[in-house]
Amino acid sequence: MLYLRPEIKTMKQRKIRMGMVGGGPGAFIGNVHRMAAALDGQIELVCGAFSSDPSKSKEAGKDLFLDEDRVYANFELMILKEKELPLGVRMDFVSIVTPNHVHYSPAKLALENGFDVVCDKPLSFSLEEAESLAEIVEKTGRIFCLTHNYTGYPMVRQAKAMVAAGAIGKIRKVVVEYPQGWLSTLLESSGQKQAGWRTDPSKSGKAGCIGDIGTHAENLAEFITGLEIKELAADLSTFVAGRLLDDDGSVLLRFNNGAKGILFASQIAVGDENNIRIRIYGETGGLEWLQTEPNTLLVKHPDKANEIYRTGGGNLSKEAQNATRLPAGHPEGYLEAFANLYKEFALASRLRNEGKPFETTFPTVKDGVRGMKFIDAVVESSSGNAKWTSV
Amino acid sequence: MLYLRPEIKTMKQRKIRMGMVGGGPGAFIGNVHRMAAALDGQIELVCGAFSSDPSKSKEAGKDLFLDEDRVYANFELMILKEKELPLGVRMDFVSIVTPNHVHYSPAKLALENGFDVVCDKPLSFSLEEAESLAEIVEKTGRIFCLTHNYTGYPMVRQAKAMVAAGAIGKIRKVVVEYPQGWLSTLLESSGQKQAGWRTDPSKSGKAGCIGDIGTHAENLAEFITGLEIKELAADLSTFVAGRLLDDDGSVLLRFNNGAKGILFASQIAVGDENNIRIRIYGETGGLEWLQTEPNTLLVKHPDKANEIYRTGGGNLSKEAQNATRLPAGHPEGYLEAFANLYKEFALASRLRNEGKPFETTFPTVKDGVRGMKFIDAVVESSSGNAKWTSV
Amino acid sequence: MLYLRPEIKTMKQRKIRMGMVGGGPGAFIGNVHRMAAALDGQIELVCGAFSSDPSKSKEAGKDLFLDEDRVYANFELMILKEKELPLGVRMDFVSIVTPNHVHYSPAKLALENGFDVVCDKPLSFSLEEAESLAEIVEKTGRIFCLTHNYTGYPMVRQAKAMVAAGAIGKIRKVVVEYPQGWLSTLLESSGQKQAGWRTDPSKSGKAGCIGDIGTHAENLAEFITGLEIKELAADLSTFVAGRLLDDDGSVLLRFNNGAKGILFASQIAVGDENNIRIRIYGETGGLEWLQTEPNTLLVKHPDKANEIYRTGGGNLSKEAQNATRLPAGHPEGYLEAFANLYKEFALASRLRNEGKPFETTFPTVKDGVRGMKFIDAVVESSSGNAKWTSV
Amino acid sequence: MLYLRPEIKTMKQRKIRMGMVGGGPGAFIGNVHRMAAALDGQIELVCGAFSSDPSKSKEAGKDLFLDEDRVYANFELMILKEKELPLGVRMDFVSIVTPNHVHYSPAKLALENGFDVVCDKPLSFSLEEAESLAEIVEKTGRIFCLTHNYTGYPMVRQAKAMVAAGAIGKIRKVVVEYPQGWLSTLLESSGQKQAGWRTDPSKSGKAGCIGDIGTHAENLAEFITGLEIKELAADLSTFVAGRLLDDDGSVLLRFNNGAKGILFASQIAVGDENNIRIRIYGETGGLEWLQTEPNTLLVKHPDKANEIYRTGGGNLSKEAQNATRLPAGHPEGYLEAFANLYKEFALASRLRNEGKPFETTFPTVKDGVRGMKFIDAVVESSSGNAKWTSV
Repeated sequence: MLYLRPEIKTMKQRKIRMGMVGGGPGAFIGNVHRMAAALDGQIELVCGAFSSDPSKSKEAGKDLFLDEDRVYANFELMILKEKELPLGVRMDFVSIVTPNHVHYSPAKLALENGFDVVCDKPLSFSLEEAESLAEIVEKTGRIFCLTHNYTGYPMVRQAKAMVAAGAIGKIRKVVVEYPQGWLSTLLESSGQKQAGWRTDPSKSGKAGCIGDIGTHAENLAEFITGLEIKELAADLSTFVAGRLLDDDGSVLLRFNNGAKGILFASQIAVGDENNIRIRIYGETGGLEWLQTEPNTLLVKHPDKANEIYRTGGGNLSKEAQNATRLPAGHPEGYLEAFANLYKEFALASRLRNEGKPFETTFPTVKDGVRGMKFIDAVVESSSGNAKWTSV
Repeated sequence: MLYLRPEIKTMKQRKIRMGMVGGGPGAFIGNVHRMAAALDGQIELVCGAFSSDPSKSKEAGKDLFLDEDRVYANFELMILKEKELPLGVRMDFVSIVTPNHVHYSPAKLALENGFDVVCDKPLSFSLEEAESLAEIVEKTGRIFCLTHNYTGYPMVRQAKAMVAAGAIGKIRKVVVEYPQGWLSTLLESSGQKQAGWRTDPSKSGKAGCIGDIGTHAENLAEFITGLEIKELAADLSTFVAGRLLDDDGSVLLRFNNGAKGILFASQIAVGDENNIRIRIYGETGGLEWLQTEPNTLLVKHPDKANEIYRTGGGNLSKEAQNATRLPAGHPEGYLEAFANLYKEFALASRLRNEGKPFETTFPTVKDGVRGMKFIDAVVESSSGNAKWTSV
Repeated sequence: MLYLRPEIKTMKQRKIRMGMVGGGPGAFIGNVHRMAAALDGQIELVCGAFSSDPSKSKEAGKDLFLDEDRVYANFELMILKEKELPLGVRMDFVSIVTPNHVHYSPAKLALENGFDVVCDKPLSFSLEEAESLAEIVEKTGRIFCLTHNYTGYPMVRQAKAMVAAGAIGKIRKVVVEYPQGWLSTLLESSGQKQAGWRTDPSKSGKAGCIGDIGTHAENLAEFITGLEIKELAADLSTFVAGRLLDDDGSVLLRFNNGAKGILFASQIAVGDENNIRIRIYGETGGLEWLQTEPNTLLVKHPDKANEIYRTGGGNLSKEAQNATRLPAGHPEGYLEAFANLYKEFALASRLRNEGKPFETTFPTVKDGVRGMKFIDAVVESSSGNAKWTSV
Repeated sequence: MLYLRPEIKTMKQRKIRMGMVGGGPGAFIGNVHRMAAALDGQIELVCGAFSSDPSKSKEAGKDLFLDEDRVYANFELMILKEKELPLGVRMDFVSIVTPNHVHYSPAKLALENGFDVVCDKPLSFSLEEAESLAEIVEKTGRIFCLTHNYTGYPMVRQAKAMVAAGAIGKIRKVVVEYPQGWLSTLLESSGQKQAGWRTDPSKSGKAGCIGDIGTHAENLAEFITGLEIKELAADLSTFVAGRLLDDDGSVLLRFNNGAKGILFASQIAVGDENNIRIRIYGETGGLEWLQTEPNTLLVKHPDKANEIYRTGGGNLSKEAQNATRLPAGHPEGYLEAFANLYKEFALASRLRNEGKPFETTFPTVKDGVRGMKFIDAVVESSSGNAKWTSV
């Protein structure tokens, strides 16, 4: 019959096949990953273990139009069963969108069974897990993408390219901040799922705010500047009575090139949304980017007018252009930035599959280890009354 | 074999199946439609006639991982061949993303062969075609979605809902504008494809700028306010020597409730991107929205502080919330707005398929007829030295 | 006695001496003129006829620390009495800050008695008065400054200088607007003094909104571009029931170089303040300025990033620098712009007094005549259903 | 003769008389003080010792139209000679606009000879001087105004009033910053006067950036919040080779109510002007103000749309309204804010002169002592590798 198309194609002839761990009913980030993966027509969802509750997993699979027999009761089953399917039918990689404490096990199992991995951030529950994962990635040679999604914005790529090209000279000062207001009350006591696990030390890890969003700020600063935070002095707070983890942190930074910095993350910044902003000052120029207006990069000069670089502009670097889908004036947002990581991951997978060299333009397990070291250093510093602590 | 999944599912069990007309190599809007259709996991592309050049169509189909036998040499073939496939295998609807002069024929053929249609704007090459299409839609009872995509933004939905709820009182004045700068030189002489057909009267129709983007402005104003432009006085210009159609227009508006307005569209507004902006002043409040910062709606008051409504805010109408995928602070952009039309079209299709009532929250063929009437009135008025002309 | 300083000094040794007509208790613009005149230490207020009510005039004089015998019951007395005082004691010029219908008589009397004049806008109650004043200025050779204060902003000077230097090429399109919201209700019925005379045809003249603020928009457009509006098509409205003059107007413009334009003025734009904004598009660049953020000029380019010019920037023209008092980052506002006209008027007076050549960088009686012609043309056009009318 | 007006008036009948120390040719802040003092017609400059070079002092006096015998060779002469003149002829107060190391002596001499004082910030060269001045003010009972001019902005007053009224609840976090870019190169080596003394430890004191602008940030935070910084941890840097004082500082703050904070001041923030900004987050709301757009105060809410409060708005506190000269939409700037301190100082002087109670709504010597303590604490903390140091 005409319409019974052959199922098994080479990777060149088909979309890359994704299996998902987590992202069941009520999840926020799971749906983000699915939309991001779908956007460019390079990836299709073929299976999942969407919830620790098998019936919820089934429900999710149905809503996603998956075949019933590709919806699994848990990630172990998914990885082991899929592995038995022929290449071209089975999933090609696993996307992990669970809370922090359920990153390590599925990632490890997937890697060790030959699957590439996309994993939400922060990398893991603890630094120990992170370092173990890095070793497994190294050993297995799989591709590992950590979704520090803000790195996917075209103007973040532009900033990174400009710094690398010396457009602002040697960097002196970095100010990076991530104020949110949504946890300014004890939202976790209401049963709100997102608030619940993020403020629960048994799921989130040793840090709250500084782990959930502080690591985004840390990663963004290191991603754009190409520098590493050498040491830091942190002052964490828990402003909301009854909360078990920090909900605000202020951190002094010293970078490995001698630059200084400030990192500020807060979840009690009433009225702020996801206002991650970075300002970088070099010897000969400056850069400023704000996530809530993501298509603008302010480029600052000492002796002429500041300039407004815009996504899609003809004057942008190839790195920014590669991360852009639309002409200038068609705002690209959070999902497009997120999708850039999936698109680049897919490209790397295809190239690797063809035996060609590929670039990891996206954050990897190494960025994940940096993030976990950052969390450890911040918590240790703050416990020591903001003593300087190496990262 | 486990992996030979059954092909034929009910619409409840599967994605809705899209066939595309146009959108081959070098196209801009075709890819936009594909991304918009893919985003929410409700629609899958199953076939296409992507180019009037069959080899280019094949090439596009391959890049899109389509089965070879579902990539057609022209839209007639596609519609007639697909019609022969069983329901659940064949495409469910046709998406038309060609230049204006190739909207009518595929739309007509699709509708008359039982397919729903999504069509890019403006509706057609001429008002006559538009009125004919409206009749065919009426007669066939098919669902027709016209992608005036700016109506898909959450804050545009919020504005519409607020006007409808009387939040700004009776409307007095509407100022809507759409300045672009990309045609400030004779770009069409360079062979640039997008510029080429848009400035060619044999493809674009009797209007250039006012058809391409003026109709977006017209549609946005009528969509949000719920009013109709009753008459207008227009002054069109062609500033770039050698250009065959208008590249700038200024229009005075009078609405059917007595409100006055200004509509301004330009493609010679050097340095502007896609700066469609609308300001609406009522007896008791005002609204302002700008597409390049689409997640903000400024709500103005006579006697208290103006307010910044933001996509994802808890204070928004259900119409805005329905058009939103992410919490506040995760910028949604052009593609998400575009995808809202596809998502709503898919929902309407599913409900219709199940015999349930459905809403057309998206622009339809009727909006398309309004747009073509607007074009005709503007051109006629301008020819008469800005004489008042009924729409 | 040491402290009895000699009263009579040459103009080089002293401030220029101002007499004021109008600006008594409850006035808005009178105080603005006084602050603007005082700011640079070049002008001192020495006398006034502040109100048609002599007791109110006395009260104002006392608050202003004037000698009682220099506070007059009416402007005729002031001009004639002051004329009798010796040079260096008497006032050097008259500042007229009354409603429109009381501009002509004091201006005429002052000019004819040898005094320079600063006069608030619009120039007069009628075009006839305006043309008569222009003749008197011509005949008497006095200096006449019309306070179209928005021309005094540094970034407006920058825009004018850039246009003159060809920075944006031949101008194609001008969009100038002045939306206010303060008259969106029948405020004049409350006894509010500013609303009262502005909406009273016996005081304001034949136009309301279009005279009060439309002329500012007209003047700004002609000042920056160096062009003249050749003809226009206007649609005036009175939205507030019971109001005697227009409170909103939309105008299509055609300039003497072939450029097109839109002018929009409104006093029913709820929630808007004094949002006078101008956008100018030339063949090779664009400019955008908004009065509520007056220290920024957006400079637009076809092929590179738009630039943010800022008051005080080292990259600015000498015209902008001459109109600036402070380094970049010290916001200059409405009063500083206003004061620039007084400062330049004072400089012209000093130079003229020394027999040296001087420039009239400020608006003069000629601009006033243009404004009154604009009002006449708008009212005539609107009466003729937006027929094209020469200015 | 009519025109020989009696010289001696009571303070009720005349402007308050100012003598100035500093502010000669090439000065920046001296002219600012003169314009600020002149703006409201309450104060007149009657004498000065404008430069340590008597010929430059004379030149300045001539440009300012002063009587020659009221222009003095040094401040000692000015204070002692003026004291001998009768009340109503002599100056009423001294304005000190010299570099930091020449604040103490003229202030002390003026206070001890019965003159009120307006003094530029920071208060003095050292904390010892500051504390001595505070004692002298206490002992002499004179009025002392320290020109932390940013406190004069209407929207800063609004913020202070809202905090005091509990509008944002108990304060949790304060982020205050003051980035400038003008010293990103060794400008002081060029002979630029403003850069010269500010980077010279013998004139500026023990701090550079943190004294010059860090104290503004510190003062603004304490002024608005009504809190005191209890302890801080600071990391100062000197990025420009050859510079003798800090040009950048990052400071962690702890307030006396338990709130946390960040203070960031920099003079190497390339491309930034005078971007002093403050964000305050309380338990139930937030406030944000930025000096380069000073007429806007962003008021943030946890559960409804953020609001844009604007200078001149009818919804503002009386404190803001008292600091406002113009209706909404007429931007007030740096000079108006500065002038508010002079206006309030003048009002206090008049009331004191009449034996009435008066408020010190402006910063005083006490704020100056706080600033000097802040400088000392920052320098000490930074020397101790950002150890926590009490203020």
